Order: sequence, then C-alpha cells, then structure tokens
Amino acid sequence: MRNIKLRIEYDGTDFNGWQIQQKGTRTVQQEIEKALQIILKKKIRIYGSGRTDSGVHAAGQIAHLKTQSTIPSDALCRALNTHLPPDIVIHDVQDVPLNFHAQFSAQRKIYQYTILNRQSPCALNRRFCTHIPYRLNIKSMRTAASMLIGTHDFRSFVASDSARKKNARVQNTVRTIYQSTLKKRGDYLIYTIESNGFLYKMVRNIIGTLMAVGCAQLPADGIPHIIHSKDRSAAGYTAPPQGLCLMEVKYDM
Amino acid sequence: MRNIKLRIEYDGTDFNGWQIQQKGTRTVQQEIEKALQIILKKKIRIYGSGRTDSGVHAAGQIAHLKTQSTIPSDALCRALNTHLPPDIVIHDVQDVPLNFHAQFSAQRKIYQYTILNRQSPCALNRRFCTHIPYRLNIKSMRTAASMLIGTHDFRSFVASDSARKKNARVQNTVRTIYQSTLKKRGDYLIYTIESNGFLYKMVRNIIGTLMAVGCAQLPADGIPHIIHSKDRSAAGYTAPPQGLCLMEVKYDM
Repeated sequence: MRNIKLRIEYDGTDFNGWQIQQKGTRTVQQEIEKALQIILKKKIRIYGSGRTDSGVHAAGQIAHLKTQSTIPSDALCRALNTHLPPDIVIHDVQDVPLNFHAQFSAQRKIYQYTILNRQSPCALNRRFCTHIPYRLNIKSMRTAASMLIGTHDFRSFVASDSARKKNARVQNTVRTIYQSTLKKRGDYLIYTIESNGFLYKMVRNIIGTLMAVGCAQLPADGIPHIIHSKDRSAAGYTAPPQGLCLMEVKYDM
Repeated sequence: MRNIKLRIEYDGTDFNGWQIQQKGTRTVQQEIEKALQIILKKKIRIYGSGRTDSGVHAAGQIAHLKTQSTIPSDALCRALNTHLPPDIVIHDVQDVPLNFHAQFSAQRKIYQYTILNRQSPCALNRRFCTHIPYRLNIKSMRTAASMLIGTHDFRSFVASDSARKKNARVQNTVRTIYQSTLKKRGDYLIYTIESNGFLYKMVRNIIGTLMAVGCAQLPADGIPHIIHSKDRSAAGYTAPPQGLCLMEVKYDM
C-alpha cells in the first residue's frame, strides 16, 4: 500500500468549496476523485488538510490518498492534470509515510486575503480580491492585526450558524496565531495569517473584523476585548470568500 | 456637444472580442453601449482605439463617445461601473477636445503577452497566460525580439484569412516598433511590444514566431528574412489569445 500526498492549486470561483456534497454541486474533492478513478480504475477517497468554502482559492492545498497502484508519482501528476478541469492543477505528487494524514499531521496553515482599496473595482483580478471603495485606515488595521498574535480562545471568531455552533460549545477553540501581517502593494492590501489551526470561517471573521477596524466601526485596540468576550457578535462581519487563498500547509513529516 | 474619453479594463475571456457583432454574441463595446443607454437614456455609439479579438484582455483600452448630456464625468464613471458586468471596469472618464478620436488620434499602443514556461499549468492565472510546458530558449527569443524593432513592412505577420488578406494587398503594412522586450519573472515570460500601429493579428503572429524561435523551430536570426519575404507562411503560428493584454494607448492630445 502507498500513501500519496498531493499539492493542489485551485480557482475556487466556480466550485461549491472543497468537500464532496450531494449530486449536482461541483466540488474540488469530487473533481480530483473523478480524475483518480479514470486513471487508477478504482474509486479512491482523498483526504484534504481541511475544507475551503465556496469561492475560496488555494495555491497550496494538501490532500492524501491510499493506493496499491505502482504508477510513478510524476506520471500520476501529469495524468491528473490531463484529466482535471483547468481550474484545478496538481503541482506535486509525492510518496509519504503510511501514517501521514493531510489533516491530522498538519502543523500550521498560511492563508492570504487580498483587498483592493480604491474607488474603481478591478476586472482582471476580480476573482481574487475583495473591493472596498472607501478609504481604510491601514495603521489601525495593523495595530489590530498584531493583537491577534499568540495563543487565545478564538470562540468569538467561530461562525455562528446553528449546527456548528452546537459543536463549537464543546469544541476546543484555543489556537495559536504565529503571523498576522498586513502589507500594502499599490492599491492592494495583502493580509497574511499563520496558525496551528483555523476554526470554521475564523479567517474570514478575523478579516471582517479588521475591515471594521479599518473603517472605524470598531476600535483598533478592541481586539483583546473581542477575544475575551467569547461572543461572535462582538467581532466584525464575515468577509467575502473571493479574497481568500490557502497558501501553504506545513508538516513536520 | 461633448466628446468623452473612456479608459477601460476588461477580462476578455467571456467576450466575443471588442466589436459589436450579430445578436447572441457578447462583446465589450455592446455591454458599454447598453450601460450608456440606461444612464443617458439615448442610443450612444462608442469608438474604440481598435478591436481586440475574442479572449484578449485590456488593462487600458480607450474609447470615445459624443453626448449632449451634462452629467459630470466622475458621476458618469461611477454610474457606468454600477451598470457594467464585473468583467468590464471604467477607470477614467474625461472630457477631451471635439476632434479627439480614440482610433485616429492614437500615436502608439503597448501590448503585453504572458507565457507560463514550466511543466505544470496554473489554475489561478490560467485566463491570463499561455502555458508552454517545454523549455523555451529565452536568449534566442530575445535576439529575435530585438530584430523586430524599427520601421518595417510587417506583411508577413498579417493574418492570412481571405477577406482581410484581400484588403491587406492594398493596405499599407509598414509599421514602426519602438519596444520589443522579453522579461523573465519566475516561471513567467512577459513580452512587451510598442508600436505606432498593429495589423490584424500582428501581435499574436509575432509572439507565435518568437515561440517557434524559443523551441528552435525557427532560427533566432531569421527575423529579417521573415520580414523581407512578405509571406505569412514564413512566420510562426498565431499564438493563443488568452496571454495577450492591451496595456496602454498613447495620444498627443
């Protein structure tokens, strides 16, 4: 038996997220499993490092699969790219130890969020950024961003939809954020966040909070209060998905 | 009467090019005229600096229109962006002298072509580059590119489709190329060309020729021979549209 790790890039615009769902919806996992079935002539289940929501992109999503096929990894990579639609690309196929698990072995993840901050929107880059036409206070946003770094209970940033909320009550919502930085590149603001794990919609809720700080709806130094409240309604709204991209998943093995 | 200049960005992927065509095809000109009709309550014709083909993008296409409306140019710009689909954005609306004509007043145009030169394709940037999986010889391509600079008869690079070929026989096909450079940015090759005018499919035929040089199908120093032959079949194939972007149109007025 082999354990195979895939490094995957996708444009999330036309997908209903990563995870396989009921028939009629198009998901990334489903497209990759379909291509694997054609190549390996067997139903294969793949396991991602985590879900991404509808519209969210990935430059470096990781998944693993088990197979008894002897196809060389390079050949499997080329075959996958031949059978996959153009909005999914496999960049690397690698044999890994049998105990490697894309989700449970993951040590850290890095997400990036892109905001276009100027009056007119962008046509060419519209699938990969969120357009904010009013002026954002970058200094305040940076102050707020830096206050997220460290080990905290991020319950205030967990999505408030009921089914998951129920789980969240018993879920461990303590995470460590290692990096939380905002860079300005022309009219674009690029926010990078690195953590040992992200709760459901946590990144987009953090970014919505930073946007609220940027337009003075929330105070820059209010982050500790939001964290301590453990109350979703204390934080900002959920930022739209199209600016978000899963950049990298880090492993020790 | 006012004469108004528009600076336009569009993602050409889902358009059948710039120019209005028969019903049922979606073009950039048509979408902008539709939006103008809603805003100005009149049928308005716009005149572009030139057509772009199906799938070709623009960061700085220019068009003009005549109107008696007194709507301020800033308000017209905002209203247009409200009524246009997200793959077209107007970046600037400006009152210009009555004798300004987007096509006939144009002095120079700059196009950029993007090649992704590595084995695996790209999902996120796939609409804006042409993927070449075999190794291109950049040095040869640069030698060839530099030989295009200057004033030449570019008949060998005019599209060979019959209707236009007939016109091409009597057409002045002498143009001056001011800039023809190839830059490497990671796995991307960015070709920039500036000229006082481009013949039908001239840019894509030039790029197809440079690609043929890059994979040793044509010699790097063969450009003068191709130019002198005045024969379309001496040059390379027509490069695909999705790598091409009209960057800028320059005017004296």
